[in-house]
Amino acid sequence: MRVLGIDPGLTRCGVGVVDVDRARRGTLVHVGVVRTAPDASVGERLAAVAEGIRTVLDQHRPDAVAVERVFAQHNSHTVMGTAQASGVALLVAAEAGLPAATHTPSEVKAAVTGYGSADKKQVQAMVARILRLDTPPQPADAADALAIALCHAWRRGGAVAPGTDALTPAQRAWADAERVARTYIRSTS
Amino acid sequence: MRVLGIDPGLTRCGVGVVDVDRARRGTLVHVGVVRTAPDASVGERLAAVAEGIRTVLDQHRPDAVAVERVFAQHNSHTVMGTAQASGVALLVAAEAGLPAATHTPSEVKAAVTGYGSADKKQVQAMVARILRLDTPPQPADAADALAIALCHAWRRGGAVAPGTDALTPAQRAWADAERVARTYIRSTS
Repeated sequence: MRVLGIDPGLTRCGVGVVDVDRARRGTLVHVGVVRTAPDASVGERLAAVAEGIRTVLDQHRPDAVAVERVFAQHNSHTVMGTAQASGVALLVAAEAGLPAATHTPSEVKAAVTGYGSADKKQVQAMVARILRLDTPPQPADAADALAIALCHAWRRGGAVAPGTDALTPAQRAWADAERVARTYIRSTS
Repeated sequence: MRVLGIDPGLTRCGVGVVDVDRARRGTLVHVGVVRTAPDASVGERLAAVAEGIRTVLDQHRPDAVAVERVFAQHNSHTVMGTAQASGVALLVAAEAGLPAATHTPSEVKAAVTGYGSADKKQVQAMVARILRLDTPPQPADAADALAIALCHAWRRGGAVAPGTDALTPAQRAWADAERVARTYIRSTS
């Protein structure tokens, strides 16, 4: 299953594509950031975000799109811009005929680090480990987009609770690796 | 000047087109509501909103688009949906090469009723009066979209403060009519 993960933003919109196989193993396909000019109008910036996402869809043809869910804790300009960018991301996915879902930041963090309050560095380190990268994905803040894509693939892929008999040998090996990784993350935080 | 006003929403998105001449006189061109299915996905609903707006652009070819600005007072689902719909509206305008602006609800209310805290009924009554309609615009909640369009045309049209020598006779007649209307609105509230 190939998933495009999107970390929506008006100034910087992270896009990450991963392949996840039946054994839940993830492989990096593409990672990048769509940047928009701060002096452009909101409409022009949203058009740049839409164009950037459409280019990734054309080039990498994912099966599904996952977008980080936006919460408005304060009435800030940034939150509204992020919400507008997330709307554009969901629109572009729907117009391309692709299923799209949203996941909360804590769902995403829990999926890749086992810990819903993990910080950016922890997410970045785990994404690199899961995708077997020698160095953290670049640009650094696009790691979130990859984490969203991984989270979606695992949640949609009928993930089974670790330690149950329903696990295949590969899944069990994966669950074991995850447990080790989580321990590693916790011990360094 | 022909303006498309948009009252963004995920369930109901108001669209209203008005012509405003140099004497600031407004004429109704089109009014409607884009409705989306509540059981559809957010992406599908945003795609329906985009399609509805594109249809109005094709049919009525406005010179500019004005969208009501969204504020997040609470972290509600509705506010996020409204913000996403506003992003889609601004995107569609930008992709059509049209200038787009946002106006706050109190700017819109002040423009059409002279009173930034006017209620829905007051806005509806004034929109009908300004556009010389025998009955309030239908559907009722699309009156907001017409008010947004009028607000934009007047603010962009180099509106002059009433009572100054810069007013043309037509502008002065308009300013007088506005004053009468404001008095009427205030006395009935």
